[in-house]
Amino acid sequence: MTGRIRNRDLARKVVDAEEAASLIRNGDNVGMSGFTGAGYPKEVPGALAKRVAKAGVEGTPMKLGLWTGASTAPELDGVLAEVDGIDLRMPYQSDPVTRDKINRGSLDYTDIHLSHVAQRVWQGFFGKLDVAVVEVSGITEEGLLIPSTSVGNNKTWLDQADRVILEVNSWQSTSLEGMHDIYYGTALPPGRRPIPIIGPGDRIGSAYLHCPPEKVVAVVETDSPDRNTHFTPPNSDSRRIAGHLLDFLELEVRAGRLPKNLLPLQSGVGNIANAVLAGLQDGPFDELTAYTEVIQESMLELIDSGRMRSASATAVSLSPAAMDRFNARMAEYRDRIVLRPQEISNHPEVIRRLGCLAMNGIIEADIYGNINSTHLMGSRIQNGIGGSGDFARNSYLSMFMTPSLAKNGAISTIVPMVSHVDHTEHDVDVVVTEQGLADLRGLAPRRRAELIIERCAHPDYRPALRDYFERAQRSSFGAQTPHLLSEALSWHENYVRTGSMRG
Amino acid sequence: MTGRIRNRDLARKVVDAEEAASLIRNGDNVGMSGFTGAGYPKEVPGALAKRVAKAGVEGTPMKLGLWTGASTAPELDGVLAEVDGIDLRMPYQSDPVTRDKINRGSLDYTDIHLSHVAQRVWQGFFGKLDVAVVEVSGITEEGLLIPSTSVGNNKTWLDQADRVILEVNSWQSTSLEGMHDIYYGTALPPGRRPIPIIGPGDRIGSAYLHCPPEKVVAVVETDSPDRNTHFTPPNSDSRRIAGHLLDFLELEVRAGRLPKNLLPLQSGVGNIANAVLAGLQDGPFDELTAYTEVIQESMLELIDSGRMRSASATAVSLSPAAMDRFNARMAEYRDRIVLRPQEISNHPEVIRRLGCLAMNGIIEADIYGNINSTHLMGSRIQNGIGGSGDFARNSYLSMFMTPSLAKNGAISTIVPMVSHVDHTEHDVDVVVTEQGLADLRGLAPRRRAELIIERCAHPDYRPALRDYFERAQRSSFGAQTPHLLSEALSWHENYVRTGSMRG
Repeated sequence: MTGRIRNRDLARKVVDAEEAASLIRNGDNVGMSGFTGAGYPKEVPGALAKRVAKAGVEGTPMKLGLWTGASTAPELDGVLAEVDGIDLRMPYQSDPVTRDKINRGSLDYTDIHLSHVAQRVWQGFFGKLDVAVVEVSGITEEGLLIPSTSVGNNKTWLDQADRVILEVNSWQSTSLEGMHDIYYGTALPPGRRPIPIIGPGDRIGSAYLHCPPEKVVAVVETDSPDRNTHFTPPNSDSRRIAGHLLDFLELEVRAGRLPKNLLPLQSGVGNIANAVLAGLQDGPFDELTAYTEVIQESMLELIDSGRMRSASATAVSLSPAAMDRFNARMAEYRDRIVLRPQEISNHPEVIRRLGCLAMNGIIEADIYGNINSTHLMGSRIQNGIGGSGDFARNSYLSMFMTPSLAKNGAISTIVPMVSHVDHTEHDVDVVVTEQGLADLRGLAPRRRAELIIERCAHPDYRPALRDYFERAQRSSFGAQTPHLLSEALSWHENYVRTGSMRG
Repeated sequence: MTGRIRNRDLARKVVDAEEAASLIRNGDNVGMSGFTGAGYPKEVPGALAKRVAKAGVEGTPMKLGLWTGASTAPELDGVLAEVDGIDLRMPYQSDPVTRDKINRGSLDYTDIHLSHVAQRVWQGFFGKLDVAVVEVSGITEEGLLIPSTSVGNNKTWLDQADRVILEVNSWQSTSLEGMHDIYYGTALPPGRRPIPIIGPGDRIGSAYLHCPPEKVVAVVETDSPDRNTHFTPPNSDSRRIAGHLLDFLELEVRAGRLPKNLLPLQSGVGNIANAVLAGLQDGPFDELTAYTEVIQESMLELIDSGRMRSASATAVSLSPAAMDRFNARMAEYRDRIVLRPQEISNHPEVIRRLGCLAMNGIIEADIYGNINSTHLMGSRIQNGIGGSGDFARNSYLSMFMTPSLAKNGAISTIVPMVSHVDHTEHDVDVVVTEQGLADLRGLAPRRRAELIIERCAHPDYRPALRDYFERAQRSSFGAQTPHLLSEALSWHENYVRTGSMRG
């Protein structure tokens, strides 16, 4: 019994990862922890993958339903996809091996809004959850579970699973205790009550995850870091995108349409998002707040510098260096950061009430403001919609960001018609590229097209977009959203055929 | 002073419609009452259209921004579009003349979620609201306004407009008094509080609309019916669609995934919706509730028969015969029907909390479960998204209904790729046609395609869909959502070119 497992009964259940993995059966639905490479189980998935591989060799192939919070890491998604151990993956992934299996058609992937997962699992239409495999940072004397660097769907997995396997990761800081807020008031309708969050930092639940000890079939001790990747400083395109966005927010404040300290920020992850947050460091805004999915590098810096008052998320995803700082200064952060279940961090009710400012990266936008966040050339999945729909649909302002070119200019991210729609024209307020920003609010589709082409498209593709739009206006079946059906997807066809949208 | 205008100050402001219309100026944004042909102003719009026509002849053309709750009637949308008096129309229309102008490119139309209108007007990005023209059924001694058969955005128009013109329609029943619930607790963020609705019938506001009397520049007395259209009994396709849907709901109850009395119903309007509601009349469900936009014929019958306990909406739209019955028995209905502002009837927070069962008609669905609710052949607007997105995105179950054929079989409503997306694959649980029902919940796109083709498509088009899907799986750029980019929209192209999707 180490200092991390302070409960006597659960300490008796410590086994190694192989033994724990042996408790998972062919056909099981398995709910694992993990969100954006944080707080996922580090050893059981690998041991499970070995079992699956062995079973395959022995002619008794093993398949599992794999459910998580969001993306995990090669040690989880990667190893299980590699051995073809997954038959249905949900609700999000960003793993190269998994992605490849999906796009070859050998793995089913259901890409759903992150806020919907818990409710849909309770509803029961994904089938029974058999096993939960959840990383925690410790277990109290009373058997309460101290969550790790992500909460994700862990509350739901622990509630719904028949059998629970815990990984207690002593790499995680002990000072995480007290940072989480696990709300136990959600329910299926009828009789649901309001979620009582009024401000981003409100605490409405317990600092611990609850789990009946008799459901715990194994406890595994680990000591491994999260998939914390090195921080890449924003490149020039990202800085330009951030500049346009911050100018826009300043104008909105000046016009009286936003308060001086803005509204709770939601930010996707990645280079552009980091550039926006870095830009806020030097900008005119103070007393910022965030109501978002993931606390990332630049958001931590905003808290460090005092620019940001409080941040709510469901996961912390940092570089190794920032994670060291985070762990060292945890006591200070505990008052300013709240980690919640993803059904709450992404809850439509709360997002609408708080009036979030949603900022998310995309794959492509079309001239009428429809957004593709998930598919390359209409059919190849990249990652998934994640929480972008939860925020876009219910936010106060819904902003989407992308460089205007991809693949060294072979791809224009502004196209006549997107090849897949994840956010409809009705849900998109602002599109930004390094070229400029298009404020689409209140505009009819034809007016949006003028703005998006002139402000957002790259000059190399602008003449072709203008030409399409002009010809479409002349000969379209209707003038609300002019299109030439035989050409609308031809840019994507060109790319598939020739390797460039230029055809 | 008639019995309808019990306030002395406002009674002094009675003028005729021409004089009232003369108070509206070129360039004004005008917010008018009206939702699904109920409660729109009956005389001022006509008088205004005459002014606009005269101004055009005199060489001083007049253009207005026209904002309403949703659709109105020929006497409003029709006459104003006819004289080219509108430069921006929002948020919804279903008028033939308006539709034609939009599709010729001479009228800008912004098609937005009905729940978003009030918030977006307060935010100010549609510009200043200059004039409100609102029908009421009476004015109390204190100057409180008794709403008419729809609430729509009237609260917002009265709050935001500089000048207010009231139409007091004595055709409307005096017993409407007390049926409405106008919530005055909404606000822009930050500092928003929960909307305190826990059940569909909860009353949280005032029975009256408030308006500072000094803003009222004119009061016009009218005596005209709403655009109440005759009720068409459900046809056989609609009855079959309803049958599949009701069977599905019964199975959900049996599986324990829905309570015995279901959950609050949201129902679009029209023949299919009426068939579903009529089917509930004979079905096994009691103590039903509705949280919807419009109380229609068949819903009233559910209330009459005692099947439905309570219904919340923002408008009442009935046939003339049913409206007579409604008016005669108003006192009974007052306890069972609540009419609210559309920002509340369609509020994401409330819809999510109540767990609505959303049922909406569509133009087309594709094999992967994307839905087109608004555009014919990708570019020609039909009506608009209305509240379907408000409900689809935040409901407990999001169900879409259509006959499998249109235009005598020249159109398949199940296509390889929809020509416009209003509800993405992430927001669609169930698709139903007269052929059958596809339960898409939890399924990866390829599994959805199998179901939609086999259960929903018409047998005449099924082989061509199977063929597309099979070939797409073989040669698509990725297997998550297999498509052949050069053929994906070819069915629509065929229709535009030849008058039939068969090509």
